[in-house]
Amino acid sequence: MGGDHAPDSVIAGVKSAEKQYPDVHFLIFGDEDKVRPYIRKYALSADRFDFVHTPDYVASNEKPSVAVRQGRKSSLWLAIDAVKQGQAAAVVSSGNTGALMAFSKLILGTMPGIHRPAIVTILPTRKGECVVLDLGANAECDARNLVEFAVMGEAYCRAVLKREQPTLGLLNIGSEDIKGRDEIREAAQILRESALNENFKGFVESDDIALGAVDVFVTDGFTGNIALKAIEGTARLMVNLLKDVAANSFISKLGFLLALPSLKRLKKKMDPGRYNGAMLVGLKGISIKSHGGADAFGFANALGVAVDAVKHDLQGNIAKQLSTISLEKEEAE
Amino acid sequence: MGGDHAPDSVIAGVKSAEKQYPDVHFLIFGDEDKVRPYIRKYALSADRFDFVHTPDYVASNEKPSVAVRQGRKSSLWLAIDAVKQGQAAAVVSSGNTGALMAFSKLILGTMPGIHRPAIVTILPTRKGECVVLDLGANAECDARNLVEFAVMGEAYCRAVLKREQPTLGLLNIGSEDIKGRDEIREAAQILRESALNENFKGFVESDDIALGAVDVFVTDGFTGNIALKAIEGTARLMVNLLKDVAANSFISKLGFLLALPSLKRLKKKMDPGRYNGAMLVGLKGISIKSHGGADAFGFANALGVAVDAVKHDLQGNIAKQLSTISLEKEEAE
Repeated sequence: MGGDHAPDSVIAGVKSAEKQYPDVHFLIFGDEDKVRPYIRKYALSADRFDFVHTPDYVASNEKPSVAVRQGRKSSLWLAIDAVKQGQAAAVVSSGNTGALMAFSKLILGTMPGIHRPAIVTILPTRKGECVVLDLGANAECDARNLVEFAVMGEAYCRAVLKREQPTLGLLNIGSEDIKGRDEIREAAQILRESALNENFKGFVESDDIALGAVDVFVTDGFTGNIALKAIEGTARLMVNLLKDVAANSFISKLGFLLALPSLKRLKKKMDPGRYNGAMLVGLKGISIKSHGGADAFGFANALGVAVDAVKHDLQGNIAKQLSTISLEKEEAE
Repeated sequence: MGGDHAPDSVIAGVKSAEKQYPDVHFLIFGDEDKVRPYIRKYALSADRFDFVHTPDYVASNEKPSVAVRQGRKSSLWLAIDAVKQGQAAAVVSSGNTGALMAFSKLILGTMPGIHRPAIVTILPTRKGECVVLDLGANAECDARNLVEFAVMGEAYCRAVLKREQPTLGLLNIGSEDIKGRDEIREAAQILRESALNENFKGFVESDDIALGAVDVFVTDGFTGNIALKAIEGTARLMVNLLKDVAANSFISKLGFLLALPSLKRLKKKMDPGRYNGAMLVGLKGISIKSHGGADAFGFANALGVAVDAVKHDLQGNIAKQLSTISLEKEEAE
């Protein structure tokens, strides 16, 4: 069990999820001495969880290559293995991201037809919410990878955001001279000739994310990571500048005090915890990364992503879409 | 003379710059019938400008390749040519970006030692301001290109932001597993062995832009464009959400009304017009793109970037830095 505020925030998150998802049973992996006090603190219902004592763990700064060699008795490894063995329907971890990715790929394996798993998340928009992938699993991608991401993003959007006909866009730049990179143009071509064509809206730019111009933004992991962190950084900057402004004068302070209930609603909408739970899609099992700094609310949301993915048969949907889209053209090459 | 609000905003911007920069003389290129009324409206001082009547122009939606063939008598071509002929120290345009780039490269040519010009701008940060390049001139770059961008960004930061020892960072992603792309690692290696080493801070991530973690963020044009538009989109989203919140209730409205003077200061800091004027660096002459939607304040700021670049001998500084950094290792290969 990892994360900056573990085990406290993790167990508090489970308590919260216990109420939200009454039909879910939890498997908790961790060091008994460290975790039990929090299970008592938050009074988890004894019939809602099983505890697996795992004294070994992967440190947050451990290199994934080292973890793969030395971490096979860790809580992280055993939790993922429980998914493989069918004892759990999904794994959620706030621990070491690189190790979670490496272990998940190694233990669960990649879905048939998927060459590279991707990291997917939900982001706030003017209209509501959208899905963005890949966020960093694959720094470089070819057209085929991008098309697979489109299929997975579409299925994820159906399952987690419950959209019936999600629209898709390929992230690109719109300078007049240069319409982005070859692999993006090629991926667009494949999508236009696929069953996803109807909902494929072509190229989108990164300011379209805030507008919610499409439901699913598809990009390589390098670009997705750059966009995600630019968005996070700017949102934080604006909040901090607002705070500076609020402290500017007595009248400002009074004004912000009066607007506080409304501002709290805004804060709630932009709260990263609300969007916590980045899934590694494309694996033969559901594996979800909760942010290391997530609080109980955030961790419960990550558990919610797992519940939605299972309930809406995300895995089955991806497989089905993959078969209908059938990348024949690519396969035939 | 181009741009969404031209010639009004352009001439109003010149009027504003007339006061700010009393030693600058303006050359105005445009259709006399269309522009003269605004010169009268804003009462430009007759001894501060010369007017060049150019009935031809490049339309905002013209393809650069077509413009290059058909636009050689346009206001844009002739204005850039005035820089080439030494009649002007810099050109500023709100018109067609692709045509400005294509014409500037063709007429002015690239500086010795620079393989590819880049688009550079200034962005707001928690600490103040920073420089980011390339923003879209080059979708794909090799290590050598990135190192040249670093040299140009450093010189630009000295000239326009007046920093004496600007710090530099290479934009990358920080996932544990994948430390970005090969060309970025290679560029880092070259910079570490160069005269810029002392102020080179290694890899930075896109949320470091809002923090102002370094003075100059160096990246390829694809990534820079993605980051820039993600930042712009998020800033607009936050402002719109704030407006929604302000309209939420009578009490909220009253609160925002009281905080208005402080909020205006915030708006001023984040005003895109304040950062208007993206320079095409690396050319044998100063060529600046003003945003098509810029108002008078924005256009005056773009003129200010031109003034700063000339006054602080940006061109000479880039040449000097290039010679000291001497990409010997690369050149020798």
